[in-house]
Amino acid sequence: MPDPTVPDRTVPDRTVPDRTWTDPAELDRGDPEGAIAAAAKRCSNWGRWGADDVLGTLNFLDDAKRAEGARLVRRGASFSLSQRFDADGPQKGWRRRTNPVHTMLDTGTDAERGVQGFPHGIGGADDVIAMPLQASTQWDGLGHIFDHGNAWNGRRAGDVVTSLGDAVTGIETAADRIAGRGVLLDVGRALGTDGELPDGFAITPAHLEATIAAQGDTARVGRGDLLLVRTGQLTRARRSVAAGQGWGDYAGGPAPGLSFTTADWLHATEIAGVATDTWGFEVRPNEFDVAFQPLHQVCIPNIGLFLGELWDLDALAADCAADGVWEFFLAAAPLPVTGAVGAPVNPIAVK
Amino acid sequence: MPDPTVPDRTVPDRTVPDRTWTDPAELDRGDPEGAIAAAAKRCSNWGRWGADDVLGTLNFLDDAKRAEGARLVRRGASFSLSQRFDADGPQKGWRRRTNPVHTMLDTGTDAERGVQGFPHGIGGADDVIAMPLQASTQWDGLGHIFDHGNAWNGRRAGDVVTSLGDAVTGIETAADRIAGRGVLLDVGRALGTDGELPDGFAITPAHLEATIAAQGDTARVGRGDLLLVRTGQLTRARRSVAAGQGWGDYAGGPAPGLSFTTADWLHATEIAGVATDTWGFEVRPNEFDVAFQPLHQVCIPNIGLFLGELWDLDALAADCAADGVWEFFLAAAPLPVTGAVGAPVNPIAVK
Amino acid sequence: MPDPTVPDRTVPDRTVPDRTWTDPAELDRGDPEGAIAAAAKRCSNWGRWGADDVLGTLNFLDDAKRAEGARLVRRGASFSLSQRFDADGPQKGWRRRTNPVHTMLDTGTDAERGVQGFPHGIGGADDVIAMPLQASTQWDGLGHIFDHGNAWNGRRAGDVVTSLGDAVTGIETAADRIAGRGVLLDVGRALGTDGELPDGFAITPAHLEATIAAQGDTARVGRGDLLLVRTGQLTRARRSVAAGQGWGDYAGGPAPGLSFTTADWLHATEIAGVATDTWGFEVRPNEFDVAFQPLHQVCIPNIGLFLGELWDLDALAADCAADGVWEFFLAAAPLPVTGAVGAPVNPIAVK
Amino acid sequence: MPDPTVPDRTVPDRTVPDRTWTDPAELDRGDPEGAIAAAAKRCSNWGRWGADDVLGTLNFLDDAKRAEGARLVRRGASFSLSQRFDADGPQKGWRRRTNPVHTMLDTGTDAERGVQGFPHGIGGADDVIAMPLQASTQWDGLGHIFDHGNAWNGRRAGDVVTSLGDAVTGIETAADRIAGRGVLLDVGRALGTDGELPDGFAITPAHLEATIAAQGDTARVGRGDLLLVRTGQLTRARRSVAAGQGWGDYAGGPAPGLSFTTADWLHATEIAGVATDTWGFEVRPNEFDVAFQPLHQVCIPNIGLFLGELWDLDALAADCAADGVWEFFLAAAPLPVTGAVGAPVNPIAVK
Repeated sequence: MPDPTVPDRTVPDRTVPDRTWTDPAELDRGDPEGAIAAAAKRCSNWGRWGADDVLGTLNFLDDAKRAEGARLVRRGASFSLSQRFDADGPQKGWRRRTNPVHTMLDTGTDAERGVQGFPHGIGGADDVIAMPLQASTQWDGLGHIFDHGNAWNGRRAGDVVTSLGDAVTGIETAADRIAGRGVLLDVGRALGTDGELPDGFAITPAHLEATIAAQGDTARVGRGDLLLVRTGQLTRARRSVAAGQGWGDYAGGPAPGLSFTTADWLHATEIAGVATDTWGFEVRPNEFDVAFQPLHQVCIPNIGLFLGELWDLDALAADCAADGVWEFFLAAAPLPVTGAVGAPVNPIAVK
Repeated sequence: MPDPTVPDRTVPDRTVPDRTWTDPAELDRGDPEGAIAAAAKRCSNWGRWGADDVLGTLNFLDDAKRAEGARLVRRGASFSLSQRFDADGPQKGWRRRTNPVHTMLDTGTDAERGVQGFPHGIGGADDVIAMPLQASTQWDGLGHIFDHGNAWNGRRAGDVVTSLGDAVTGIETAADRIAGRGVLLDVGRALGTDGELPDGFAITPAHLEATIAAQGDTARVGRGDLLLVRTGQLTRARRSVAAGQGWGDYAGGPAPGLSFTTADWLHATEIAGVATDTWGFEVRPNEFDVAFQPLHQVCIPNIGLFLGELWDLDALAADCAADGVWEFFLAAAPLPVTGAVGAPVNPIAVK
Repeated sequence: MPDPTVPDRTVPDRTVPDRTWTDPAELDRGDPEGAIAAAAKRCSNWGRWGADDVLGTLNFLDDAKRAEGARLVRRGASFSLSQRFDADGPQKGWRRRTNPVHTMLDTGTDAERGVQGFPHGIGGADDVIAMPLQASTQWDGLGHIFDHGNAWNGRRAGDVVTSLGDAVTGIETAADRIAGRGVLLDVGRALGTDGELPDGFAITPAHLEATIAAQGDTARVGRGDLLLVRTGQLTRARRSVAAGQGWGDYAGGPAPGLSFTTADWLHATEIAGVATDTWGFEVRPNEFDVAFQPLHQVCIPNIGLFLGELWDLDALAADCAADGVWEFFLAAAPLPVTGAVGAPVNPIAVK
Repeated sequence: MPDPTVPDRTVPDRTVPDRTWTDPAELDRGDPEGAIAAAAKRCSNWGRWGADDVLGTLNFLDDAKRAEGARLVRRGASFSLSQRFDADGPQKGWRRRTNPVHTMLDTGTDAERGVQGFPHGIGGADDVIAMPLQASTQWDGLGHIFDHGNAWNGRRAGDVVTSLGDAVTGIETAADRIAGRGVLLDVGRALGTDGELPDGFAITPAHLEATIAAQGDTARVGRGDLLLVRTGQLTRARRSVAAGQGWGDYAGGPAPGLSFTTADWLHATEIAGVATDTWGFEVRPNEFDVAFQPLHQVCIPNIGLFLGELWDLDALAADCAADGVWEFFLAAAPLPVTGAVGAPVNPIAVK
C-alpha cells in the first residue's frame, strides 16, 4: 500500500529534457515574423491528437494525473486564485475590455419595504452581470488567438470563430477537464526584489529552471501539470490601489512575464496549461520592436496550450513559501459559456 | 498508515440523528406563514457562528472535511456538473431572468480577412456576456432570500442588499470555501420510474433516507458535506429539447424537489450546501395553497444554507450507479462577483 | 406671401411616373437569385451620389423638403410612433434578438431608506439597458444587409462592417437627417378587413397606388418623403397580448408586408425612407420557395434605402382617418450609436 | 393671413415676470438643507395638474405651443443635438455610469465569407448595446431625483421607483410630448471668453436675462418652451479629446452650469424643459460647502421639470449666431424604455 504522503512518482517523469534553450539576446528584434514562424514550426502540435482534436494540451491531463493531484492534498487548506469580478477592476476599455457591470434585479430594500408582491413574507434579491469574458481571472480558449488566419490544429480562423462564437473549440469543450496537479513557480520570490519582478522583466527558461531548483523537488514541472507562474506584479498593483492610486497600467501596460524564448520549454514540458498573475502572460513590452503578444501566437494556435491570465497567486504563494511545498491539487474549470473563446474561472488550489 | 482506499471515518459521524420528521400530510396547506415561522424557529442558526458571520453552513466545511473529500479520489475521473451558459437555455424571462447573451468583440473571420490591425500575422477573438447570475448552474448566496425583511443572521434586508449589491454576504465571501466531500443522492434512480421523479413529487426526509439506504455506506450524509440531489427532471427536459420541443417549463414550472418538511433534516445533518438538477430546489407547485418557495425562506435566511440550482448531475449519477460509489471530491467555487447574491459555477466532481 | 395652410406644391412633383410594375404572379418562385439580381440591376443607386456616399436615399431629403414638412403642421398634435422598449416585448431570441433588459443602478426604495450616502436629503435613481439595437422600433442602417458580400454603394461587406461595427455607414452618419414630410399609407384600412391585412398578404405597387387614390391628395408620395405603411398587424398582435395570449409570432413569423415587386416602385418614387408596423417590412413568408428577406437585399445595399421596422402607426392612423389628412411633419432621428448598423428611434409625427 | 416669417405672438407672452431673483452671494453655504427647503416651498408644483399627474412641466407644452414651434421653421436646416453613444465617451464609471458597449451579432466579414447560412446571397449585420441610460445625451425623467424620500407630485420614492423601474413616472409617459419651440441661450458666447464659460461659473438669472437681451427678441423664454443653455464646456472637452488628452473630468468634475439661484426663474418662466451641454446641468462644484446637485433636488421632484444633459449645442449655436435667430422647432422625444428614470435621445432642431 503506497504511503499517501509521498506523491506517486511512477507517472511520466516531470523533468524537462536536458537541453539548451534560445537566449533572448539571440532574438532578432526586427524579425518577429521569422522568429514566430520558426518557433511555431518547432513547437507545433497540429495533428498530434488527430484532425478533430479540440483540447490541445489538455490531452496531457488524464485521469491518472488528476488522481496524482488529489493525492497531494494533506491539510485540506483551500485557496481561491481568482481576482474579484467588479466595476473597480483593472480594465481600461482597450478593445472594449471593460470592467464588469453588476446590477440588481431585486433588492433587500425592496423586500423590506414590501413592494415585491410575494406571499408569506418571503423576499428576494437577484442580479445580472455584463462583462467581457476576459475581464478578470480567466482561461484563454483555443479560439482566442490565430496565426496568419490559422487556428489550433490548422483550421482556418473563419471556420472556427464567427460572430456566433467559436463553433469548434468553444470553451465548453474543456468544461470537465481542468483539474489536476498544480505547481507554482514563484519567480518573483525566487529571483525578484521583495518578491516582485520589475515591469519588462522577461522570464526565460533559465529563470524557470532556477526557480524550480530553488523551490525543490515539489516544484518539478512535467506532462499534464497546470503551471502557475507568479511575477509579483499583482502584489504591486494592489499596493497602488490600496494607496488610492488606482490600477495604473496593470491591464495592458508594461509587465513582467514569460519571454518569447520560453515557447520551446512550454512545449517540451508537455504541461496542460499555464497561468500568471499578470494581464497578458508574456513580458510587456514584447521582445520585438513592433509586436503584439508573439508568444501567444506560438502557444495557442500552434502548441494548443491553455493560458490563464489575471490569476491571484499571492495567498497560495505565501502558503507554499511557508511550508516549502509548491505542488497541490488544482480545480480550475472555466464557466462553460457555449462558443466562448475564453472564460472566467474561480480556480481553487487545495493543499 | 491508513489505507487511502478507505475513507477516514474518524471525522464527525455523518449519520443523521435517529429522529422522526414532519410528514407532509401534516402540513396545514392554508397556513404557510405559521409553518414557515415554526420551522424557522426550530432550525435557526442565527448567532451560531457569531454576530458577524457571513458564511452560514459553510462553517461546517473545514480543512479536515476538504482533506477527507480529496482522499475519495481514486481513478481521477472528472465530471462537470454545469449546464451550459447560452442563449438556448431554459430561462423564459420570469422577473427578467433571461438566457445569457454572448457576443463577440473580435472574430476569426475578421482575423482571417486581415482587418484587425495587429502586426506579424497575429489575430484574435474576444467576447462579452450579459446574463442573470442565476441564468444557469449557480449557487444562491446568503443575500438571495429574506424572511419578513430579515436576511441571514438576523440582519435587516435593507442593510444587506441595496441596488449596489450585497455589501455583507456577497458571494465573494465564499470564494475559497466550496470544495470538499460531495455525496449524490439519486432519488430519481432510487425511487422514480426510469430514473425520474414526476413533476410535483415532494422529496421527504423518508425519501432521502431510503435513497441513502439503497445506495449504501458511501451515500451517508453529514456535517460539512456538499449534498447533491438528483430528481431526473433535467434528463426529461433534455429529452424534450432533443425532440425539438424545447425546454417547456423546466425554468419555473412544476418540478420534483425537496419537500418543505426537509427543513429540519437539512438543518440536522449539518451539511454545508445542497444542490439539485432543477430550477428551484424545492418541489413545485409548493405544498401550500398560496406560496412561493417556502423552503428557501427557511433555508437561506434562517439556516444559512447554500443552495445550488440548475446543476447537471446526469453523467456523475451514471458513473456512481455503475461503480456503486456515491461520494467524491467536489470543487464548486462560485465566480466571485463582488456583491452578488448568487453566482454561476462550473462544479467539478472527481472520483 | 404664400398661405401657410396650403402646402407648397412647387417642390418636385410627388406623383410616381405612370408606368406598370411587375405582377407578383410573374415571379419565378424557384429563382430568387435571378429575380434579386434583375431588380438590383434595375434599381441600383450605386455611384449616384459619388463613390464616398454614406447616406443613400437620405440624399433626397434636403432642407427644402424638411421645410415643406414643417409647413404641414396645423394643430400641433403629436404622435409617438414608437413601441415601448421592455422585457415584455415581442422578440423571441432569433439570432440573439432578445427583448431589452432594463435594470436599476439606484432606486427610490434605496433613497427612501437612506442608504445612498448623499447629503441634504437628495436621493436618486439611475438605470441601465442591454438590448439588441433592433429590439423594438428602429431604423435599419445601410450596413445592415449585404448582397453577395456587397454593401451599399458597391463596397465589400468586410470593408464596412467588422466586429468593431460599421466603420463607413454607421448610423451616426444619419444622425441629423431624418426629419421631413411624412406620409402614411394605411393599406390595412384601405384594403383590409376591419383595418387589418392578413398575415402573408403581399402589398404590391397596385395596392399602394389604390391606397393613395383612396386617401386622396395628401397621400401623394414622392422624392424625399418618409413613407409609413400600416398593415394592421401590430393592432392584431396587441389584441393578442391584451387577451393574455402573448405576441405570438409577431417577431419573425407570417406577416403582411411589402411584396418583392415593390422594389421598382420604392426606387422610382425616390422616397428617403419607408417604415412599417411589422417586424420585417416585407411580406412573410417571402414570395420565393426558399428565401429570406429578398426585398431587403435589393433595397438596402442596392437602392440605399432606409427601412424602419416595428413602428407603431395606430394612433396616427386613427387621427389621419378622422381628419382625412395623411401627411405630417415627421422627426425620426435614430440614436447615434457609433458604428451601429441600425438604431432605436422614437419617431414623432406632428400634424 | 399671417406672415409665416413672423412668429405668432398671440401665444402666452414669454417674458419672465419683472421681479428680482436671489443673489448667489446671499446663499448660506453652510445650509443647503434650509436653502433647498425654502426653494422647494416657493417653487413647488405639486398638485398643480392633479394628484395623478406624471408629466410635470410638460403640461406647459401643448399643441398650440408645438404648432408655434413648427412655424419657426424657414430653411429646413436640421441639427442633431446628440453626442455619440460609444465606448470612447466621457463616462468614468461613477456609480457604474460607464460608456456604452456596442457589440455585433453578425458582421460583414462573416457575410462576405459566407458563413451565415442565408440563401440567395443575402448577408446581414446586427448589433447589441449595453449602456447606462444616462451614458450620453439624455432627458432625466421625473423619477430620477428625490427630495427627502419624496418624488414628483408628493409621492413616496419607494412607491415610484423600485428595482423593477419607475412604475409611475417612467419615461414612456413622456414619449409623445417633447416637440415644440426650442430656444437657445448661448451664455458661453454672450458672457464667456472665446465662447466658453470657465468651470465653476454659476449662471444666475441675471446672466440668463443678459443673454436674452444680447440675443434679442427670438431668444425670449416663456411658457412651454424647451430651453437650451450652452456653456461651452463641451467645446473645451472636445478640444482636449482632439489633442489626445481625453475627456478629463467632463463627466462629473468641475463645470459651468446653472446656479442654485435659478430655481425660481426656471419655475416662473414655466418652461417645459431645459437642457445643457454639460454632464450635470448645474454648476459644479455646487454652491454649498457640502452638497450634491441641490438644484436637481428642487427642479425634478418639486417643480416637475425635465432636465436634459450631455447635449451637443455647438453646431446649432454657430448657426444661430450666424443668422441671429435663436428659436427653432425642436423634436426631442426620449426612447420610451418602460419604467426608465431617464432616457437617451437624439434631439433634432430644425430652423
